[in-house]
Amino acid sequence: MPEITTRLEHACHGGRIGFYEAHSEALGLPARFAVFLPGQVLEGGALAGQTVPALYALAGLTCNEETFVTKSGVLRHAARHGLAIVAADTSPRGAGIAGEADDWDFGTGAGFYLDATEAPWSAHYRMGSHVAYELPGWVEAQFPIEPARRGIIGHSMGGHGALTLALANPTRWQSVSALAPIANPSAAPWGQKAFSRYLGPDRAAWARHDATLMLRSGHTHPTLILVDQGEADQWLATQLHPEALREAAASARQRLSLRLHPGYDHSYWFIQSVIEEHAAHHARILAEPPLVT
Amino acid sequence: MPEITTRLEHACHGGRIGFYEAHSEALGLPARFAVFLPGQVLEGGALAGQTVPALYALAGLTCNEETFVTKSGVLRHAARHGLAIVAADTSPRGAGIAGEADDWDFGTGAGFYLDATEAPWSAHYRMGSHVAYELPGWVEAQFPIEPARRGIIGHSMGGHGALTLALANPTRWQSVSALAPIANPSAAPWGQKAFSRYLGPDRAAWARHDATLMLRSGHTHPTLILVDQGEADQWLATQLHPEALREAAASARQRLSLRLHPGYDHSYWFIQSVIEEHAAHHARILAEPPLVT
Repeated sequence: MPEITTRLEHACHGGRIGFYEAHSEALGLPARFAVFLPGQVLEGGALAGQTVPALYALAGLTCNEETFVTKSGVLRHAARHGLAIVAADTSPRGAGIAGEADDWDFGTGAGFYLDATEAPWSAHYRMGSHVAYELPGWVEAQFPIEPARRGIIGHSMGGHGALTLALANPTRWQSVSALAPIANPSAAPWGQKAFSRYLGPDRAAWARHDATLMLRSGHTHPTLILVDQGEADQWLATQLHPEALREAAASARQRLSLRLHPGYDHSYWFIQSVIEEHAAHHARILAEPPLVT
Repeated sequence: MPEITTRLEHACHGGRIGFYEAHSEALGLPARFAVFLPGQVLEGGALAGQTVPALYALAGLTCNEETFVTKSGVLRHAARHGLAIVAADTSPRGAGIAGEADDWDFGTGAGFYLDATEAPWSAHYRMGSHVAYELPGWVEAQFPIEPARRGIIGHSMGGHGALTLALANPTRWQSVSALAPIANPSAAPWGQKAFSRYLGPDRAAWARHDATLMLRSGHTHPTLILVDQGEADQWLATQLHPEALREAAASARQRLSLRLHPGYDHSYWFIQSVIEEHAAHHARILAEPPLVT
């Protein structure tokens, strides 16, 4: 277990939001993350000494571990539900790969929550392992966070991450939701660019990181998947493909609530407008006994 | 009335947040501002064709017209109360005065919501007139915002602005609240630096822009003033002086609710934790018939 360095901590909504850093073995680099703890589990709280479930939050292209907790408005609702929030970064930082910061939709800020298999990316671009295993291990060991109750939510590229990680390991992530996710990245320019460079030309490898294709190949999640999508989203037609996700879910008999919102775009102004229902969705499921222990 | 340029508009919480720019005569420069309109007054809403009261939001040092609406969480509550939000910038931009961007606590991003009287600042640094008169004139003419129902809120330097503008003209601002305001700037390094350069050495001029000194000299507001302050605020001891405001309010028989919050600091993590009650405070007062018409 690496030493966790506290960068900043702030009281917030009766709890505490903190920004931390630790050396990631998965990434071979320092990794930053944010943790919100509701007041109940802090010293003097009604659940002091106990643990609470955590909702893991994955942000989109160009963002970092601060974005979702700063702009989504989720902390207010997490505080009310007694949920911890754990926010990851969106890529390794400082890998030193030539050209990694040249594009806003690839490389730095665009790790796509998978483990790259192609050089030179495979040495450090392993956000899949970092988010799915390493980061939960850190925070469950060092914060009052319950190991067996995890939810996952994400926006855009982070929505892709939430859906694919939960479908790949539905007992590890008991609840899942997404906001304007890249729902079928193999069919989208962002995903094609990232997958071809992180995973190589073999589309069979891509399919293991594409929520729509995972549903088509038999992966499902035992709970309802909640997805919200703005109809005025500037990326809807080209990059997101929620209709493909819906069709695949129907074929797979996966329960999916895909809600389309007229007038809303891809921004955090949209996210903050629907986040209350996402927090409630996760709290409902995570408050139940875990499916596996 | 200048032409208002729309920079960006987003659906949010059933309403619309927009970012705009117009040529300011007060500043002699373009000025940016943000307006949130609740869904009720948009096309198709229950109050379409009518107007709603507005709460003006003033941010602190280094911020701009985006900060308060992005980080405070106020829009959710404004939407529920049917309040518009109007957010101003914190200084003129691009005045071209030598050294204006050298300090984070003076000049650019630090206009202190007053009209400078000293050269070279007096030519452009006139945020007092801009916020008190020009900006309300713009938005009341061009948005469905009711002229006679205005509230004002601010953080830190913006809390100073909200308190001093409301005390200077209590019939113009029917409700007022502040978050960690610079409550007695004449006694604080930030205020002394700004006032000596914007207003010159005469402390009688400073007193007209210092909430504590205004209360001492007989200015009051007919409604309760709500002020929230974190006790772990890193600027509390040196810059903010809420205790001076409380003593002056008591002497002036000004109703003041000064609430101290253990553990909270100066950040927007604090603001988002108390903003719901500020929105309710303004909505309660602004829902009443205006004191003057």
